[in-house]
Amino acid sequence: MDKLVERALAGDRRSIARLVSEVERKDPGSAALMKQIYPHTGRAHTIGITGSPGAGKSTLTSRLISELRENGKRVGVIAVDPSSPYTGGAILGDRLRMQDHALDDGVFIRSMGSRGNLGGLSGATHEAALILDACGYDIVIVETVGVGQSEVDVVKISDTVCLILVPGMGDDVQIMKAGIMEIADVFVVNKADRGGAEKVAADVKVMLDLIPERAWRPPVSLSSAEKNSGMEDILANIESHRKYLTDTEGGRNRILSKIEAEVEEVLRRYLFERVEDVWRGERDTGILNRIENRETDPYTVAAGLIERIVVR
Amino acid sequence: MDKLVERALAGDRRSIARLVSEVERKDPGSAALMKQIYPHTGRAHTIGITGSPGAGKSTLTSRLISELRENGKRVGVIAVDPSSPYTGGAILGDRLRMQDHALDDGVFIRSMGSRGNLGGLSGATHEAALILDACGYDIVIVETVGVGQSEVDVVKISDTVCLILVPGMGDDVQIMKAGIMEIADVFVVNKADRGGAEKVAADVKVMLDLIPERAWRPPVSLSSAEKNSGMEDILANIESHRKYLTDTEGGRNRILSKIEAEVEEVLRRYLFERVEDVWRGERDTGILNRIENRETDPYTVAAGLIERIVVR
Repeated sequence: MDKLVERALAGDRRSIARLVSEVERKDPGSAALMKQIYPHTGRAHTIGITGSPGAGKSTLTSRLISELRENGKRVGVIAVDPSSPYTGGAILGDRLRMQDHALDDGVFIRSMGSRGNLGGLSGATHEAALILDACGYDIVIVETVGVGQSEVDVVKISDTVCLILVPGMGDDVQIMKAGIMEIADVFVVNKADRGGAEKVAADVKVMLDLIPERAWRPPVSLSSAEKNSGMEDILANIESHRKYLTDTEGGRNRILSKIEAEVEEVLRRYLFERVEDVWRGERDTGILNRIENRETDPYTVAAGLIERIVVR
Repeated sequence: MDKLVERALAGDRRSIARLVSEVERKDPGSAALMKQIYPHTGRAHTIGITGSPGAGKSTLTSRLISELRENGKRVGVIAVDPSSPYTGGAILGDRLRMQDHALDDGVFIRSMGSRGNLGGLSGATHEAALILDACGYDIVIVETVGVGQSEVDVVKISDTVCLILVPGMGDDVQIMKAGIMEIADVFVVNKADRGGAEKVAADVKVMLDLIPERAWRPPVSLSSAEKNSGMEDILANIESHRKYLTDTEGGRNRILSKIEAEVEEVLRRYLFERVEDVWRGERDTGILNRIENRETDPYTVAAGLIERIVVR
C-alpha cells in the first residue's frame, strides 16, 4: 500500500484512482490508508455543489472547471450518484458533459455511489475528497444529487457550500422550507436567461435578512451555465468565502468545527465496527424473536451489549 | 414517570402527549421510559407516507384518517416537520387540513421537528410511533416531508411504506433516479384528476418490471385526495401488504429486519453517548488545532479514544 500512496501523492492518476477505489470498496474503514494520506491534506479548497435535480449542477460544475483551469488551478471532482441498483446507470449519463475535461491532466473526475443513502454522502466520499486534496488538486468539487440528506452531509466535508437554485421550479420555496438556507455559503440562481431569476435572487435575499446576524452573509449570483455566463462572479464569491474562513474568527471556528465533525464521524464508525461482532453473535440466539414477542426490548438488549464491551 | 406511562397506556390523551414531548425533549435517550412502553407495542400497523413536497401528502393523510375512522380504527399520526429555525412556522400551516380531526377522540395528531436532519427522522420520531402503538392506536401514520433521507429512515420505522407521486412534476422520474423505487410497498399516483396520471402509473409498473423478482410486488393506485377518490383502494393495498408481512416468510423476515434496525439504532446512540464525555474532555486539549496542523489525524485520535473506553 505504501508504494501506492507514494505514487498517488506524486500525482500518478492511476494510483489516485486506485486509492479512491480502495476507500470506496472498504467503506467504512480504510484507516491505515487514511492515516498516510491525512498529513498531506488541508491545502485544497473543497467546494460542495448542491441543489435540486435539474438545476444544472453538472453543466455548471463543468463550466467552473474550465474557468479554474484557465486560472491554472488543478481540479478534482467527486460526482455523487444515487446508487439504485436498477437505475444507477442512467443518471451517470447526465455527467457526460463533464467528459469535456476527460483528457485534461489537471482535472480528475470520479463518480461515486451514494450507497443507498439516497443522495446522502458515504464516509468514502469524504475520504475520496481528502485523497484528492493530498494528491495536489487545488480545488476539490463535491457535486451532490438531489435535495435531502446530501445537503447536510456536504456541509461536513466542504469548506464552501454552493447552493444552485433555478427559477420556475418553485424549489426556491421548497429549499427555504426544508431548512437548506442555513447551509449555503454562496447562492447561485442558474438558468438566469429564463425569466424569474431576479425574483428568486430577491426572495433569497429577503430570507437572508430574516436570519439573525451572522459573520458571513452569503452572496447571491446569477448565472447561465449553458451560456457560460456568471462563472467569474461565482468563483469570486467562493474566493471571498475562502478568505473569510482563513482570516476571521468566525471562519476559523468553522474550520475547527469541520475537523471536529471528521473525528466524530470516524469515532461513530469505529464504535459500530467494535460492537458489530458482539451483536452478530447475539442476533443468532433468537434475540430478534424474543424482542418480537416482547419478552425483551431493544433498549435492554442494546444496554446489555454495551455493558459487555465498554469500560466506563 | 410510572404513573404517567400508566395513564397514557390507559388512553389518556394528555399523558400520551406528555410522553411524546418527553422523548422529543430527551432525543436521543429516553431508555427508562421506552423500556416501559415497548412491551405494549407491536399491535399497531405503522404506515409511512412519503413523497415530494407538493404531492398532497397531508390532504391524502387526512382522507385516509376519515376512511379508517369509518372502519372503526383508532389512528395516531406523526407529521414530521423540517425544523428550520427561520421558516419552521410556515410549513406547519400545510398541516392545518388535518385539524379536521382535532376534535375526534379516536385520532391523535402530533407534529415533530426533524431536528436539522432536513427531512430525516430523528430517533424521537420512532419512539413517538412506538408510544402511539402502545397507547392503543390501531394505525400509526408517519408522514414525512420531502424526498431524501426521510425516505430511508421511514422504511426503518414503518411496516408499510406508501409513496405518493403526482403527474406533471417530473418527480416520478426523479424518484426513480434517486433509488426510492425500492423502498415503496404501495405506490399512489395522487392528483389523478389531472392529465398524465395513468402515464405515471404505467411508468412505475415498467420500472417495477425491471426489478428482479421479489416476494412482494408493490401495487399502484390512482387517487385524488382533494376529491376524496381512491382511498378505499389505497387502504386495501396497505391491508394486503400487512397480510403479506404476517403470513409469508418474506414478510416475516422484513419484520425481523425492522427489529434488528431498532436494536442497531439504539446501540449506535448508546455507544456515542458513552464516548462523548471522553471526547469532550479531549477536545479541550487543543486536539482540533493539532489535527488542523496535521500533527495528528482524525483516525488516530478516534482510535485512541476507542481504546480508552472499549474492552475488546
